[in-house]
Amino acid sequence: MAFKIGLLGLGTVGTGTAEILLSPEGRHPLVQELEIYRVGVRSLDKPRTVQLPPDILTTDIEAIVTDPEVDIVVEVLGGLEPARSLILKAISHGKHVVTANKAVISRFGDEIFTAANSSGVYVMLEAAVGGGIPVIQPLKQALGVNRIQAVTGIVNGTTNYILTRMRDEGADFGEVLADAQKLGYAEADPTADVDGLDAADKIAILASLAFGGRIKLEDVYCEGISGVGAADIAYAEKLGFAIKLLAIAKKVDSDKEKLSVRVHPTLVPKIHPLASVSGVYNAIFVEGEPIGQVMFYGRGAGAGPTASAVVSDIINIAAVLKTRDASKLHPLLSCSHQHYCQIAPMEELVTRFYARFLTKDSPGVIGKLGTCFGDRGVSLESVVQTGFQNEFAEIVVVTHDVREGNFRQALDEIRTLDAVDSIASLLRVL
Amino acid sequence: MAFKIGLLGLGTVGTGTAEILLSPEGRHPLVQELEIYRVGVRSLDKPRTVQLPPDILTTDIEAIVTDPEVDIVVEVLGGLEPARSLILKAISHGKHVVTANKAVISRFGDEIFTAANSSGVYVMLEAAVGGGIPVIQPLKQALGVNRIQAVTGIVNGTTNYILTRMRDEGADFGEVLADAQKLGYAEADPTADVDGLDAADKIAILASLAFGGRIKLEDVYCEGISGVGAADIAYAEKLGFAIKLLAIAKKVDSDKEKLSVRVHPTLVPKIHPLASVSGVYNAIFVEGEPIGQVMFYGRGAGAGPTASAVVSDIINIAAVLKTRDASKLHPLLSCSHQHYCQIAPMEELVTRFYARFLTKDSPGVIGKLGTCFGDRGVSLESVVQTGFQNEFAEIVVVTHDVREGNFRQALDEIRTLDAVDSIASLLRVL
Repeated sequence: MAFKIGLLGLGTVGTGTAEILLSPEGRHPLVQELEIYRVGVRSLDKPRTVQLPPDILTTDIEAIVTDPEVDIVVEVLGGLEPARSLILKAISHGKHVVTANKAVISRFGDEIFTAANSSGVYVMLEAAVGGGIPVIQPLKQALGVNRIQAVTGIVNGTTNYILTRMRDEGADFGEVLADAQKLGYAEADPTADVDGLDAADKIAILASLAFGGRIKLEDVYCEGISGVGAADIAYAEKLGFAIKLLAIAKKVDSDKEKLSVRVHPTLVPKIHPLASVSGVYNAIFVEGEPIGQVMFYGRGAGAGPTASAVVSDIINIAAVLKTRDASKLHPLLSCSHQHYCQIAPMEELVTRFYARFLTKDSPGVIGKLGTCFGDRGVSLESVVQTGFQNEFAEIVVVTHDVREGNFRQALDEIRTLDAVDSIASLLRVL
Repeated sequence: MAFKIGLLGLGTVGTGTAEILLSPEGRHPLVQELEIYRVGVRSLDKPRTVQLPPDILTTDIEAIVTDPEVDIVVEVLGGLEPARSLILKAISHGKHVVTANKAVISRFGDEIFTAANSSGVYVMLEAAVGGGIPVIQPLKQALGVNRIQAVTGIVNGTTNYILTRMRDEGADFGEVLADAQKLGYAEADPTADVDGLDAADKIAILASLAFGGRIKLEDVYCEGISGVGAADIAYAEKLGFAIKLLAIAKKVDSDKEKLSVRVHPTLVPKIHPLASVSGVYNAIFVEGEPIGQVMFYGRGAGAGPTASAVVSDIINIAAVLKTRDASKLHPLLSCSHQHYCQIAPMEELVTRFYARFLTKDSPGVIGKLGTCFGDRGVSLESVVQTGFQNEFAEIVVVTHDVREGNFRQALDEIRTLDAVDSIASLLRVL
């Protein structure tokens, strides 16, 4: 056994990882050279589905990351602490690290990669985004020769599952969420998923790799799916769109030095490859020069897929350790950028919008809306009076590309109109 | 400039490759360390769209692969010879090789990789399959920890373009092919594409990487799309299928030691992610344990995408050369398997079939068909009399899973029936 693994955590992903390492036959021969040397757990007595020699389990997790015998630390504890401190301590003890922890990497990536580079170790994170889908490795290796223009992802399975069921069943957000919680597709506290926070962590990581700069998580605009109504999904369908929670990182057309990085529910044209990514599946769509468009698709979560990503990171480190000149880091596996990307504020975003208004059923309402939009230079692609909600008429508007700031000013004016009861929903269009 | 590139060929892909290397800004920093040192061309006088110093162009291509200054040879000549001989000579002179040449690799891969391993050099081929889509690298690196069960690809853009237009326009194969040739989407001699030979080369390469064994190209069953009629596409649509030319490599369920490797037009259920891959796009769908299903999607040809793949291979070699202990090959970039995979004969294949019969419009025909199938243990999923072709009634049958040999025996018997004029088409179902 050549490489000793210290596994931190034996939950879903940790168990999946151990299962791969314990049954190497039929896999890449390097898997045979990996030894599960220590496993850090909270309780020694908990029944486990995976068979491990009892003497390698320990509750002294800190002892693993400082153990001189350990070559590679695999952090699959989740959460911010003690995960962050353990990763940093492992690095300072010269261990390579594999982590599935998007929350830690998106918040403390700068601290962690700075430490890793100065210690000459690798920190690998394929499992942090898109479960088993190879996307981190391709961004670092295969796509790096391109000038990336945009990364657009469906990177949260829970929200994609909810939106898919809302569409299929014509159901409202609340009832589908409740059922998803019952079925285990959504957490008891669903905030991180449905408010887009999990997707924000992931797009910060993807943007950093795609555009070669660090991203401050607080710069990522984030809007969840709880405001998406069954009516919006139905109208979007009729107009030829699917509604998806997209995580987008994109060069600003008018200023290539700036990025727009954001998470929000989005109308996606049905002919776009992302529109047909349904249920718990994830997909990451990358546009670059000269490659054009490529997409990576698969299950974004679950023990098996995530463990596949973890172990692929481990064998990538092992492969380099077997062949490298130890004084040099492999430039496609390490993470060397140190500047921060410049992020454009949302009001400068240029995009199409979808808006649904509840108005009095009086003549001339569409004209008044049109005037407010026209005054702010907002050009409309379509305006449809779609039906009634109680005593109000529903009007759905889709704009051409418009600066978000201008669109919002028009909405502020529209809100003051007597004929307008409310803006029932407001979504961006890809 | 650290790494000297000898580029063999300055056609579409060669020009695209040179363009990336000549404009490194905004790409991975390693691209700046690549120097186009020599370019081998057939004619020095041909006008070029890419600006290169005239003294690096030469018609003495062989001198490039033996030049002691050259670190990496990039073969984008295409065709079998002199490409094969040049690759082997480059290897014997200690050069690493990047090639886009699926025809050479699928036929002479054993010879080439044996030579490369004994010379301690890399032969990289991301561009040989799927244009710019990263699929070779993920199969070698990210997916290798899985036990792969199947690789299913739409790997030929020309045939996918033709089938997509046949569906969209209800047109026949011949007329769409003629138009595709006019538009440059199909070659003047379209044989390699429409007969599935190009796809066979590619699935042989993918199978070899996915299943860790060599594949004899002559073992790949190959059937093109010229027999697919507009009527079949229309019936398939009604039954909920798209017809795609699939290249499939799959472990045989009943004997995991054997692979089924084949190219043929296939009815793909519309809910399958491959069904919505349209036009010139390619996609490769991989199933493995424990990752489940992942798919890679993008443009399968063209200067930009293919050049992206070529240069990504170059920087992968460059990265290893910068950091490696020169005596050892990186185990995830080199190709070490030496045994041949065992390929199951087609008659042992178990699959679903679609067949369209032209029959006399007499009572009891469906019953007779049913009896012939039943006698051979072929269970039918649906039998529909769909319409008429001149004086004949058309009957479309979709079977449940059946051993191909049994199905063919039933067909032999059906051909002898008085009521049956002909079997107008016969397709497999995914």
